[in-house]
Amino acid sequence: VKMFDRRTGLEMLDRDTCLELLAAEQVGRLAIGGSGAPVLMPVNYALDGETVVFRTDPGTKLERAGRWGRAAFEIDSFDREARTGWSVVVTGRLEEVTRHDAATLQRVTRLPLFPWAPGEKHHWLRLVPTQITGRRVGGPAR
Amino acid sequence: VKMFDRRTGLEMLDRDTCLELLAAEQVGRLAIGGSGAPVLMPVNYALDGETVVFRTDPGTKLERAGRWGRAAFEIDSFDREARTGWSVVVTGRLEEVTRHDAATLQRVTRLPLFPWAPGEKHHWLRLVPTQITGRRVGGPAR
Repeated sequence: VKMFDRRTGLEMLDRDTCLELLAAEQVGRLAIGGSGAPVLMPVNYALDGETVVFRTDPGTKLERAGRWGRAAFEIDSFDREARTGWSVVVTGRLEEVTRHDAATLQRVTRLPLFPWAPGEKHHWLRLVPTQITGRRVGGPAR
Repeated sequence: VKMFDRRTGLEMLDRDTCLELLAAEQVGRLAIGGSGAPVLMPVNYALDGETVVFRTDPGTKLERAGRWGRAAFEIDSFDREARTGWSVVVTGRLEEVTRHDAATLQRVTRLPLFPWAPGEKHHWLRLVPTQITGRRVGGPAR
């Protein structure tokens, strides 16, 4: 059964499909609010249950931005020739995983999360989802 | 001459390279600030000079979000096997192109901008850049 968003006409992906797609990808884009324009950047990530985990270094934009709290994370894949694709957006609270949460820190440091960018990246951040949504665009229905 | 960001160690793309990449792509991700988490979504776009142009419908998330002002837009391409890629981020002011700016409206309605999603999308928005930055990750230098 396909679900469609009445407002946009786009097919909605169910939560399980969103989580499968999140588990399969390695790079997404993180948007972090604050005063002025959002900070927006691609990041390597891994999934810890339903939580999105990132690594960062002290002093970087992501590390500084991580203190701001609310964030959104997106993955997608598009076929330019077919004009089709899908996207998943996770919205939630961005927080650092510190030694005060030893069990979580131990778990996330064991994730297969190896950033492509240089730097030790010994800080772990996670986005705890309040909402996970997915959409598909194009395809046979059109 | 390659430039590197001292904070992240990433190679920086110069402005001309960023604009060439922006001219070549068709899909990016738009992040719009406001209260709470940013709105983040993939969008079809076209370039009008150095301005990023989108189409939308009344009542959609993008149309409503467009009233908020400050936004960031990102394009990227990554090679998962090689662990390399690039991204370009445009930060600026998101505004609707209205009939009050007839010359701009006429110009943007002639852009080759054909959204893949359903809907008439007779509203044009544009992101007027205050900053355009690009980064490359991975590659021979590593």
